[in-house]
Amino acid sequence: MFGAIEAGGTKFVCGIGDDRGRIVDQITIPTTVPEETLGRVAEYFQNKAIRALGLGCFGPLDLDPASPTYGFLTSTPKLAWRGFNILANLRRRLAVPIAIDTDVNAAILAEHRWGAAQGLHTALYLTVGTGIGGGILVEGQILHGMMHPEAGHVIVRRAAGDNFPGVCPAHGDCLEGMASGPAIEKRWGSKGRDLPLDHPAWDLEAGYLAQGLVTYICVLSPQRILLGGGVMQQADLFPRIRQKVREMLNGYIQRPEIVANIEEYIVPPGLGTKSGLCGGLALAMKATEARKEG
Amino acid sequence: MFGAIEAGGTKFVCGIGDDRGRIVDQITIPTTVPEETLGRVAEYFQNKAIRALGLGCFGPLDLDPASPTYGFLTSTPKLAWRGFNILANLRRRLAVPIAIDTDVNAAILAEHRWGAAQGLHTALYLTVGTGIGGGILVEGQILHGMMHPEAGHVIVRRAAGDNFPGVCPAHGDCLEGMASGPAIEKRWGSKGRDLPLDHPAWDLEAGYLAQGLVTYICVLSPQRILLGGGVMQQADLFPRIRQKVREMLNGYIQRPEIVANIEEYIVPPGLGTKSGLCGGLALAMKATEARKEG
Repeated sequence: MFGAIEAGGTKFVCGIGDDRGRIVDQITIPTTVPEETLGRVAEYFQNKAIRALGLGCFGPLDLDPASPTYGFLTSTPKLAWRGFNILANLRRRLAVPIAIDTDVNAAILAEHRWGAAQGLHTALYLTVGTGIGGGILVEGQILHGMMHPEAGHVIVRRAAGDNFPGVCPAHGDCLEGMASGPAIEKRWGSKGRDLPLDHPAWDLEAGYLAQGLVTYICVLSPQRILLGGGVMQQADLFPRIRQKVREMLNGYIQRPEIVANIEEYIVPPGLGTKSGLCGGLALAMKATEARKEG
Repeated sequence: MFGAIEAGGTKFVCGIGDDRGRIVDQITIPTTVPEETLGRVAEYFQNKAIRALGLGCFGPLDLDPASPTYGFLTSTPKLAWRGFNILANLRRRLAVPIAIDTDVNAAILAEHRWGAAQGLHTALYLTVGTGIGGGILVEGQILHGMMHPEAGHVIVRRAAGDNFPGVCPAHGDCLEGMASGPAIEKRWGSKGRDLPLDHPAWDLEAGYLAQGLVTYICVLSPQRILLGGGVMQQADLFPRIRQKVREMLNGYIQRPEIVANIEEYIVPPGLGTKSGLCGGLALAMKATEARKEG
C-alpha cells in the first residue's frame, strides 16, 4: 500500500491506496499552521504500513533537488506556510520514501496512468478552484523546467465593461485573479455553487477560462485538456468553454481534435475528483521506482 | 556535409554545413509560388553531395507522421502555399533523407546543440519578425504535442489607449497581430529598422513582448528565453523587455534566474541570425541518426 497527500490551501486530503490507483481509505485535515496540520497528517499515516508516500502540494514550491531550499514552499500567499520546508518536516515525521511535486503535476501523472490522459504524450490538467493551476505532460514527461508551471497566472484580456480588480495578490487580474473560486465569490458576493445556471457569472467565467485554454493550446499544443477543481463541478461550463475556445481560435488550428471533436478534447478528469489524491499514489510509486533504480 | 533550409514566408535560405553547426555556403531564394521557389531550391542542392537535408519551415504545418496530410502546410496566410505538400515535393526532387520541423523548432534544436541553450533541458526560442513563433524544448525534448506550438498567437492585453486593430488574419490582436514586424510597420507607417531608438514604438513593443514572455514563463517555466528575428535586431529592446517582465511577474516567481540574473535569462540567440539555418543542419543530422536506428 502507498500513502498519498493532496495538500491544498484549505485542506490536506490524505489517503491510502494501491498501485492501480484505488483509494481504500482517506481523511481530510484542515490547513491551519504547519506544525498542527502536519502533526495530524503524520498521526494518520502512523501504523498504516505504507511503502512510500507521495505529496502533491500547493505552491509555489522549490522542486530543484540541487537547490538549498528544495522542498520549501516559496512565495505562497498562505503566510504561515511561506518559506516552510514541508518535505523535510514530513521526512522527519515519517520513515518512508517521500516524493513531492505540485498538486496539479501529481494530478496529470495520475490521469496519465489511470484516467483521461492514458495513451497521450502531451496533455494538460487544469484545476479551477481556490486557485488555478496546471499540471503538464509534454512528450511523455512531466514539465518542471526552471521551477514548475504557474499556468493560472497567465495574462487574460478583460471582458468589455468588466471593472472587477481581480483577487490575485501578485497580479490582480491574471486568469486566477479573474476566474478562480474566490474571484467568483468576491465578484458576485456568493459562492459559485450557489449561483443559478442562468446567472451571468457563468458566461463571464467560461470566457476567461476559454482565454486561458487558447493560450495553453498555442503554447503547449496539448492532445487533450482536462478541467477539474471545484468551479468545474458546474458541468454546464464545459459546452460554453468549448464553444468559446473554437470561436477564439477562429479556424487557425486545423486539427480534428478542435475542429470536429472538441467534446473529447476539453473534458472532465477521468478520475473525477480523485485526480489529486491518486496523483499522490502515482508519486509514491515513482518514489519506490526511483529507489529501485538508485 | 548536410543541407539546410530555413523556409520563411518572404525567403528560403538554403545552406550547406557540417555536424558542428558550421555553414560553409548559403544562398537566398525569394518565396514566390511553390513550383518556382522549390525548383530553385532543388537546383541549389543538386551536385552538392549532401548526406541529408533538414527543412525548418514556416507554418502551420502537419507534422504528425500518421496523418494523411503529413508534411503539408495547412492554414498559412500565404495562399499559394496553403494545403501544399512541401515535404513530398522536396522528396521528389532530391534523393536524400529529409527531416521537417517548424522553423523555430529547428532553431531551438540548433541553439541546444551549439548555442545559448546548451546544457539546458527546458528553453524557448522566440522569433519576432514577419511573424512571431516559438520553438520549445521541454525536459530535453522538442515540443510537438497535438501539432506544434503556435506561441505567437497567445492573447495579450491592450496597452491603455491603444486602438490598433492588429494584423493577424485569424485573431487580429493576438501577440503576433500586435507586435510582429508587419504590425510595427502598419501601426507607424515605417519599418522598425527606420524608427529611432527614442520612438514610442519601442516601449509599446517591449510591453507586448514582455506580456508574451510572462505567459510563456507561467506555462513553460523555461530555464532561458532566446529572442531572435528581425525585430530583435533593435538590441535596446532587451533591457526594456527584461525590466517589464520583472515588473509584471511582481515577485511571484522567486527564482534567481529572474530575481537576480535576468540579463542571462532573456538573451539573444547564441548563433546570432544563424539559428534557423543551423537548425536545418541539426534536423538533417537527426534524419541520418533516425535512419541508422531504423
